[in-house]
Amino acid sequence: MTERVQLLGISNAIVDVLAHVDEALLARIDAPRGSMTLIDEHKAREVYGLMGPATEVSGGSVANTVANFASLGGRAAYIGRVKADQLGDIFVHDMRSLGVDVRLPPAADGLPTARSYILITPDGQRTMQTYLGACTQLAVSNITPETVGDPEILLVEGYLWDLPEGPALIEKAMAIAHDRGARIALSLSDSMCVDRHRAEFTRAVEGHVDIVFADDDEVMSLFETADFAAVERKAAELGKLFVMTRSEKGSVIVEGEVHIRQEAIQVPRVVDSTGAGDAYTAGFLHGLANGKALDACARFATECATAVIQQVGARIEKGRFSP
Amino acid sequence: MTERVQLLGISNAIVDVLAHVDEALLARIDAPRGSMTLIDEHKAREVYGLMGPATEVSGGSVANTVANFASLGGRAAYIGRVKADQLGDIFVHDMRSLGVDVRLPPAADGLPTARSYILITPDGQRTMQTYLGACTQLAVSNITPETVGDPEILLVEGYLWDLPEGPALIEKAMAIAHDRGARIALSLSDSMCVDRHRAEFTRAVEGHVDIVFADDDEVMSLFETADFAAVERKAAELGKLFVMTRSEKGSVIVEGEVHIRQEAIQVPRVVDSTGAGDAYTAGFLHGLANGKALDACARFATECATAVIQQVGARIEKGRFSP
Repeated sequence: MTERVQLLGISNAIVDVLAHVDEALLARIDAPRGSMTLIDEHKAREVYGLMGPATEVSGGSVANTVANFASLGGRAAYIGRVKADQLGDIFVHDMRSLGVDVRLPPAADGLPTARSYILITPDGQRTMQTYLGACTQLAVSNITPETVGDPEILLVEGYLWDLPEGPALIEKAMAIAHDRGARIALSLSDSMCVDRHRAEFTRAVEGHVDIVFADDDEVMSLFETADFAAVERKAAELGKLFVMTRSEKGSVIVEGEVHIRQEAIQVPRVVDSTGAGDAYTAGFLHGLANGKALDACARFATECATAVIQQVGARIEKGRFSP
Repeated sequence: MTERVQLLGISNAIVDVLAHVDEALLARIDAPRGSMTLIDEHKAREVYGLMGPATEVSGGSVANTVANFASLGGRAAYIGRVKADQLGDIFVHDMRSLGVDVRLPPAADGLPTARSYILITPDGQRTMQTYLGACTQLAVSNITPETVGDPEILLVEGYLWDLPEGPALIEKAMAIAHDRGARIALSLSDSMCVDRHRAEFTRAVEGHVDIVFADDDEVMSLFETADFAAVERKAAELGKLFVMTRSEKGSVIVEGEVHIRQEAIQVPRVVDSTGAGDAYTAGFLHGLANGKALDACARFATECATAVIQQVGARIEKGRFSP
């Protein structure tokens, strides 16, 4: 369990349930278009009952990044809680089949494996209703020197702060990894999540966090500004590595005095933008773990994101980029 | 439970688990390319352990036809056994969300819901390894005047004959439906299945069966000839309605003296041929149930099959054809 890996991800372990819906359904379940809402079991049953036929596929933001990192040839490990039910088996299978070292066995009891109902409206927009189930029972006791091991990079996601023991388990994981010389990366998850936990995220970024992954909305929410130039100044002052994705505007990397602008790659058609950020993060970390310069990391990350938006689904197929 | 429906399907209720694999994997699990093999739980674990990340989606041949029939606007019902587990919930949800009247509730105990590992090699060919699980426990006692109801058409699949109580439950279902004036349709499933049960299929076709759906290989296996002209003669002699699909050669309808040839529709590229036959059957039965002439049924069936081979997945999206 303590084999040296390049990347350890800790995050919500979720199976995505994707279906095409009409706008009327969003109104009926009171879901703002493009939002990610946490729902309880009762609401989950209601939403699923109203959805059409669906497709199930392993998901979760940082889980997608870890899977992609492994598909790119990286050595990866993962901590996330699923139950020993069929969806949990699917999640763990999909990780292990990519060579990811899954550090927690599926739990014998407790809540069922999490699922995210992803409602795709005719305009291609995705609205997520997420029932966290087993994820909410991820515990401080699951984070030990054995499960954390000795990763080169630890990646956590902002969504973890929504869990009852989330803040405490992240602190413990960061402390263990930091003591062992790992770089700590934080993905800000989404702007509503940043709104919910701005103070904690700020403390984390001023503390052990070395690398922040965020999109426009998330980083503007973090710094409470609508001005991207102000974002760049504040990021530079903090001296940490900020990796900020801006969709068709490309990405911006800021680390103190260093500012790198990476153009987006033009594509004939965006097939499905899901997972673009997660794939970008995987590519960037893969570059870092292999000692590449920041501009090379950004370029490779952009190629990974570009591949993912030209396919259906959030995960890069193994062998898509030769390791 | 006895609402009048146009189509009642009885079949194996299966969740498909799709993954891209290389040819070496097929050799390793000893699976002939393009075959459908029934596997036990032990082999299922082995195959799943060797497969890469997968996507889960409701499947099953006649189940696909029933789902498509409902998507086309038809009133459909379904009998198939799943367990009350997560894959069973997925299967039933996907049917009900299309308005299909699912006549058996998921079973509280017994074997888990069936799954079919669909291994897609780089040439696009699909090799299926099917663990029947709960399907094998479909029982004669599940077939009653209440569950069969009063359908206009009963559709069963050849695969049912592989189940322990299959032959007896089919006979019972056919007898009930026949007594109520339903037309009985049989889908021959696959040529290996015809090899396994030729005598029983022949008896069924000489008995209550009014309509046979088959592809080239299946109908040639049934009549034990490699000569399609001989197939047409034998089908004509039986006086039943034979609906035979021949891929790019189109389809041939034979009913006694009536012989109809329907051309295939040329498409720029076959994206995924899975479910073409099931979609054809759905379109044909939809035409029949709505009183269309045989040539119009064949034309609409061809349009449905053509739609399915130009998308990934076996099921027609609701609203694809206006009802």
